[in-house]
This record gives sequence, structure tokens and C-alpha cells, in this order.
Amino acid sequence: MTDQYKEFSEHLRKIGVLGSIGALLGWDNEVYKPEKAAGIRAEQNALLSGMMHEEFTSPDFEKIVEGLSADKSLSKEQAINVKKVHEDLLKQKKFSKEFIQKQSMIISEAFGKWHAAKTQNNFSLFEESLEKVVALCKESAEILGYEEHPYDALLDMYEPGMTTKKLKVIFANVKEQLVPYYNSLLAKKQVDNSILHHKFEKQKQWDISIELLKQMGYDFAAGRQDYAPHPFSVSMHPTDARITTRVDENNLCELIWSSLHEGGHALYEQGLDVRYFGQPQCSAASLGIHESQSRLWENNVGRSLVYWKANYHLLQKTFPETFAKVDVMDFYKAINKVQPGFIRTNADEISYHLHVLIRFEIEVALMEDKIKVKDLPDFWNAKYKEYLGVDVPTNTLGVLQDVHWSHGSLGYFPTYSIGSFYAAQLFAHAEKNIPQLKAKIENGETGELLSWLRTNIHIKGKLYTSEEICEQTTGEGLNFDYFMKYVKAKYDVIYA
Amino acid sequence: MTDQYKEFSEHLRKIGVLGSIGALLGWDNEVYKPEKAAGIRAEQNALLSGMMHEEFTSPDFEKIVEGLSADKSLSKEQAINVKKVHEDLLKQKKFSKEFIQKQSMIISEAFGKWHAAKTQNNFSLFEESLEKVVALCKESAEILGYEEHPYDALLDMYEPGMTTKKLKVIFANVKEQLVPYYNSLLAKKQVDNSILHHKFEKQKQWDISIELLKQMGYDFAAGRQDYAPHPFSVSMHPTDARITTRVDENNLCELIWSSLHEGGHALYEQGLDVRYFGQPQCSAASLGIHESQSRLWENNVGRSLVYWKANYHLLQKTFPETFAKVDVMDFYKAINKVQPGFIRTNADEISYHLHVLIRFEIEVALMEDKIKVKDLPDFWNAKYKEYLGVDVPTNTLGVLQDVHWSHGSLGYFPTYSIGSFYAAQLFAHAEKNIPQLKAKIENGETGELLSWLRTNIHIKGKLYTSEEICEQTTGEGLNFDYFMKYVKAKYDVIYA
Repeated sequence: MTDQYKEFSEHLRKIGVLGSIGALLGWDNEVYKPEKAAGIRAEQNALLSGMMHEEFTSPDFEKIVEGLSADKSLSKEQAINVKKVHEDLLKQKKFSKEFIQKQSMIISEAFGKWHAAKTQNNFSLFEESLEKVVALCKESAEILGYEEHPYDALLDMYEPGMTTKKLKVIFANVKEQLVPYYNSLLAKKQVDNSILHHKFEKQKQWDISIELLKQMGYDFAAGRQDYAPHPFSVSMHPTDARITTRVDENNLCELIWSSLHEGGHALYEQGLDVRYFGQPQCSAASLGIHESQSRLWENNVGRSLVYWKANYHLLQKTFPETFAKVDVMDFYKAINKVQPGFIRTNADEISYHLHVLIRFEIEVALMEDKIKVKDLPDFWNAKYKEYLGVDVPTNTLGVLQDVHWSHGSLGYFPTYSIGSFYAAQLFAHAEKNIPQLKAKIENGETGELLSWLRTNIHIKGKLYTSEEICEQTTGEGLNFDYFMKYVKAKYDVIYA
Repeated sequence: MTDQYKEFSEHLRKIGVLGSIGALLGWDNEVYKPEKAAGIRAEQNALLSGMMHEEFTSPDFEKIVEGLSADKSLSKEQAINVKKVHEDLLKQKKFSKEFIQKQSMIISEAFGKWHAAKTQNNFSLFEESLEKVVALCKESAEILGYEEHPYDALLDMYEPGMTTKKLKVIFANVKEQLVPYYNSLLAKKQVDNSILHHKFEKQKQWDISIELLKQMGYDFAAGRQDYAPHPFSVSMHPTDARITTRVDENNLCELIWSSLHEGGHALYEQGLDVRYFGQPQCSAASLGIHESQSRLWENNVGRSLVYWKANYHLLQKTFPETFAKVDVMDFYKAINKVQPGFIRTNADEISYHLHVLIRFEIEVALMEDKIKVKDLPDFWNAKYKEYLGVDVPTNTLGVLQDVHWSHGSLGYFPTYSIGSFYAAQLFAHAEKNIPQLKAKIENGETGELLSWLRTNIHIKGKLYTSEEICEQTTGEGLNFDYFMKYVKAKYDVIYA
């Protein structure tokens, strides 16, 4: 390693350590922070992010990065690390201090307004702030630059390389293939999932989730699970990747699949290459790839029949009064019941993407000036009626349900769907590459699957874009057909 | 406020925020950190403490402090804040970078050696490291300077203003008055405390501690309680002062009094003046004063008869099988049984100070070159035989029991006894100042006591030394007679 590259990696490591401290503050914030500590926590966060920004944009570091950008002696991986950091640096430099300050003011105001609007079911309280957020995103896109569509600049922050054009094709598939298929399922005789709504002691649900997490390979010596109002995963470092979950005594669906989902995220983080901590090589490739890992474990594995053939005995032993006499096939059908609703986070595996489709259409329309913020509630409700067939009862349960826009995060929602679509494509190839994968899962053996993900996804970090990783692993870029095929194979049986 | 004072307080606030982040890392470390995260945690700590040191010793800040030191327009409190910070700065500047590095190396090695020695009951594994620590402390004392005794320089770090001379007088009292009194108690008919060793469900013990903490005024919106192997309190900020406790299903003594003790520490931190966060005015006066707050709640309140007259019903209701037919007086006697042992942290309220006396004598002898490190085990065991009448079975349970010396903390132990002695003196004056205090405690009302502590101790922060605070509150400096009187009045009744 050259001295300059050593300086480069040590400086990034320092920023990484600062980031890891910030991540711990974030974890504590959601899990254990006392109420009155909100003020000091805000100060701690502001100080840390200011320091990280200062370190990243320091002239000395810039010089090093520029020097390395012209260095032909770097290894292939080193050169990619430098290139990615250089790109980030150039992006950060595009924003003036005034813009950053304005952005921070608009966003911190927007969150409060959104919260009030949602609590009081009064969209007009959020309207003006949301207009500012949209204007800010447009300005951001202009500052960052784009080739075809301003929305591309926003997408690129969460899913490097993704474009509006590609997404339009994908979501056209959702609209043309998934929506009619979904409606065909709804027309069939409905699955009965009432067994999932018996009473399930919280501690027992918790114990099952710990057992399942261990089984999937989540390393509790490099992470932990706690309760939080909104399940999330947060990684300080590959040796400290934590998850949270939530529990409902009257609904078995809550805890187990939250744990599997967040466990999938954390497996990715635990699998990053710790030697390069702070560098792109030890960072997640994209939100879409991150989500592919959580969805794969939650759905492709965790809602499959083979998985429950392996694990149903745990439920039967723990909750015999509910499950002793219920066949695993009936349990499998129950956990996969499709049911249109108006809340994204409660949606089934298929209709979930109809929720995302609506947000995608709205975000693109906003960026194209084809819709005004004040018309969002009506637009929203009409789309829910059109795609999901449901009447949205209130704005609180409709256009105001999600926090993302108040964070200024336009371009984020599509990564949720991308994650599921990648998951289907990756899982299909895992099945090709790992002999008897389903039989192994049915035997409670998911170790080979994890190794396959470690080698093909985790260890690569951010050396490649999500599209590149997908190509390396499956021989082609993101292809919606895999998801459609997966869904049909599964639900044709469930709704036979 | 002058501009310069504003800069001064803002810079200290920044250092305070960094410190508060470090405190959260420390909390997490003891409570929730996954095992494998030890490495990244060490990096996080090193980075933060380096930054704090850099900020505190920055030439710009030094200039401000020097400017303010000559500023006659400051308020009395401002002038004290400046003076204390200036003193700290001058101290820090005395240590060369080489010394700091050597110190850090010796200490980090010492902890590992001590741990191995304790685990393997092999003092010789620690011997060389401890010799280095003692040499380091001597060097430290010479660098810092002192008037009469090198040990004074060490004491001053934990208990500003305390001297070897004063302590020798205090511990002579312990030896001449407390030791014989203790032996007279041991000669009497022993108290039966077997009721404390029944089976007590952990969750129920926990619930009682929460109830008692709330009752004493601990603000759970500005703190929280968790389990940890070693109970401690840690404060990020007056709005985030947390405690931990531990539980033993077969020993009621563990949880409740750990919680009261740590709760006393946390009440102090919650009572500091948040407006001056980062400045001495919003810091604890000394370890001794800190300990006086924990001991006062743990012992003077929490092991008093009136306190249990108010709260015994909680125990009787929760554990009727044990306490329904036991009189509160018998319970009171049980929790105050004296019993000589060889472990400091398990000691009763009286013999505790015999443990500290031994450490004090050893530390002074080391500083005076009157004893060699290699002779410590024999010296230790002889002293335990002499003062406590016990045979120390192993070095693990003897000279190796405490971690402090491995941290380089000579001069720390005396603050534990100072805390109890201050507590007795303060409580005696609280009784004078608050009409019917004991009757109020018997009624479950400790609010006035807390207010009295807030006004007389907490809100003053580090504006004054412990001795000064004691004089302001009780009309005289630390006086061992209060403790002796308290102990006699209490134990003469228990052992009547």
C-alpha cells in the first residue's frame, strides 16, 4: 500500500469511526434515550455530523484523493474506492454552505409540520413545508446535475445508477402484470388467517425470534435485538450491527417477520469486509441491495413453505393451544394471505408494490410539475381506489402515513420495491447455484445460502453498483420477470 | 456576558458535548455492547478523548482563558469557572506528550495483567505492571507538584483540596474509634438476617426498586435503570443521567440498595445547573461529594428505620411468604447486620471504612517508599487480620479484588469513606434544617430532603471545593464525629 493510500484509508477510517458513534446515538435515540434528553441528543448529533462533514471536505484530504485519482499503481479495488470517494467529494462540494443551511432548516421544520398534520389529520398544516421540500429537491437535482430526468439525481443518492427511465419500465410491469394478477387473487376464495390473531405471549414470541435469528446465522456476539416502536437495523461496524423489533400480543405477524427482515439487513452489515472499514468497500452498495437482503430473508425464505416445514414445530411447541391441530400448509397460507389495505407497512408481499408504485408516480409527477402539492390528497386517494380498490378513510391513514417526504427523501421509496425484485432474482439464482437449496431450507439449513450471499453480495460492499452486482451474480441487470414468476408460482398454489 | 466569556462557555459546551457522547459509549459498553464490538469501541473512545484533549488544550482556547483570567468585569461565578478551568489547563500542560503516551501504555497493559492475575489468583502476573503504575503515580505527583506530600497531588485529582495530612487525622479516628466500636458490636449477640436470603423473584425486586427510585425523586424522563454486572451511574447531561443495578434471586440485599446508591448519584447529576453545561458550575464538586449523595440515600435514608416504616408494606405485599409475619424492626436489624468479610463491596456500613483504611495505608506507604509492591499480598493479609479479624483466603479475594490500581487510580479509594463521612454530617444538618425530617421520611416524604440537597449541594456544581460546600452547609469542614455519632446512635439500638 502506498503511503498516500494509507493516509486515505486512515482518514476514511476516522470518519467511519465518527459515523459509527453517530449510529450508536441513533440506536439509543430510538431504543433507550430518556424523553428529556432530546435537546442534548440533537446537539450531540449536530456536533458529530459537522465534524464528519469537516473531515470529509478538508482540503488536505481532497488533495490526497486527487493525488490518488491520478495514481496508476493502485490495485483495482483501491482505484474503485478512490473513484467512489472522489465522486462523493465532488458532489458534496457542489452544495454551498447557504444551501446546506437552508436544507437543514426546511427539513427540520418539515418534520414537525408533518407530525402535527398527521396527528391532527390536517394536510394543510404540512402543505407549505412539503412545497418547500419539493422545491428543495428540484434545486438539489439541478445542483447535482443529471442526464435525462431531474428525478435521476435524487434516485442516485439512494440507488447509484438507477434512472427514472429504468424505473418507469419496472413500474409499468407492476401496473400491467402485478395489478391484474393481484385482482385475480382477490376474486378467489379468501384464505383464513384468523389463527394469527389469537393471543401469543410476548416473551414466547421474542424467544422464537431469537431462535430463528440464530438459525439464519445472525451473530449475536456482533449485534443484539431490542424492542423499538418502529423496527429498524443500525450498524456501527460489522462487529456491532444491531436490530430492533416490535411485538403485538394479538398478532403473530408483527414480531417474527420484523426480526427476519431486520436480521436480513444486519447479516449484510455483519458480512461487509471489516478490513476496509470507512471505505466504500466496507459500505452497503445501495438501499435497494440492502432491502434485497432483508426481503430475501423475510419473504423468499421466511414466508416460504419449506422454511416453515423446518420451523413450524417451534410454534406448535410454544403455542400448542393455537397450532397443535393446525396443518403447516394452513399456517403457510395464513401468513401469505393477500388483503388490500391503505397502509404500506402492513401490506402483503404483492400489494406492497402497488403502494410504492403510487409514491413513485407522485414523486415523478412532482418533479415534472405535473401535480401540485395541494392536490396530493385527492390524487393519492384516487390512485388507491384505482390500484388497490380501497377507500382511504383519512389523510392521516393516507398521504400523511409515511415520514420520508418530511425528511426531504424523494427518490427513496422505489428502493423498497427494487429490493424485493432483486431478492426474487437473487434467490432464483441461489437456487440454481446451491444444489437442493429448498430441501436444505426444509431441513433447517440456511448456512449455504448465507455463504452464497456473503460471497456474491456482502463482501463486495460498494465496489460495484447494485446493477453491476446483480449482473455479476445473475448474468443480467434487474429483471422484473423473476419477481412475477416467484409470485405466481407461490400464490397460484396458495389460491389454488 | 462578554463576548469572550461567551466564547469560553461555548467552547466548554462543545467539549462537554463530546464528553457526553463518550459517556454514552461508556454506558453502552457496560450494558448492551456486543462482545465482538470491543475493538471498534476502543477506537471510538480513543478518537473522542483525543478530540476532547485537543479542544481543551487548543492555543486559541488558552488565549481566551488567559484573557478572562485577567478580566475584572466577570461575575463571581464566572470568575470561579474561569479560575477552575485555568487550573485544569495549567495541569494538563504540565504533562508532556511522551508522558501521556507512556501513561496510556502502562495503564492499558496494567488492566489486562490485573485481570489475568485476578482470574488466575496469581499476584506475580500483576506485580511488574503495578510497580510501573506506582512509579507513574510518583512521577505524576512530581510533575503536578505538591506542598507537603506527593500523595496530595494524587488526592487532588479526585478530591480537590484534600490532603494526606487531613486524611491521616480522619483515618486515625477510624482506627481509634471505629475499629474498637466495631469489635464491640461483633462481641454482642448477632442479628439474624436469614430472611434476606429467601427466594425473591427478580422482576418483583426490579419493580420495587423502580417504585423507590420514583419516590426519592429520580426523574425517569431524564434517566433510566438497566441491569449491569457492576452497578454504576453515568451522566451524559442533567437530562440524561442513567443508573444500573444488579439482582440476585437469593439475596434481597443486592438490587434495592444498589438502586438507592446509584439513584443518589444520579439525583446529584440531575440537579446540576443545566444552563452551565460544560463549565465547572455544571460539574460534580468531587468524588467525595458525589459519594456523599449516593451514601446518604443508600444508608442514612435507605437503611434507616423510618424509611422502612414507610416502605416495608411494599415488601410485605410483594413477598408475603417471607415478610408477612416479620416485624419491620426485625427487617431493619437484618439489613443492618454487621459482619466482617474480606470483600470491600460486600461490606456493611461500618466495616466498609476498615477496607478503605487498609487501602489508604497501603497507598501512602507506596508513595513514601515504605513498602514494596511484591510485599503487598502479605501486608494486605496482615492488615485484614488486624483490623477485620478475617483470614483472606486468596489474593483474588484479597489484594487483587479491586480494579482501581490497574487504572492507575491511586488516591481514589479514600473518597469512598469521605463520601460516607460527608453524608453523616450533611444528614445531621438536614435534620436540623428540615423540621420533622424523620417523621416526614416515615410518611414517605423525602421531597424536602431532596430540595435541601439541591439547594445546598447540587446546584453549586464545582464552584466550590467539597470542604467549602461542607462549610457553607454545616458551618464547619469535614468532621468525622458526625459519622461516629450516627453509627453509635444506630447500632447501639440494633445491637442493644
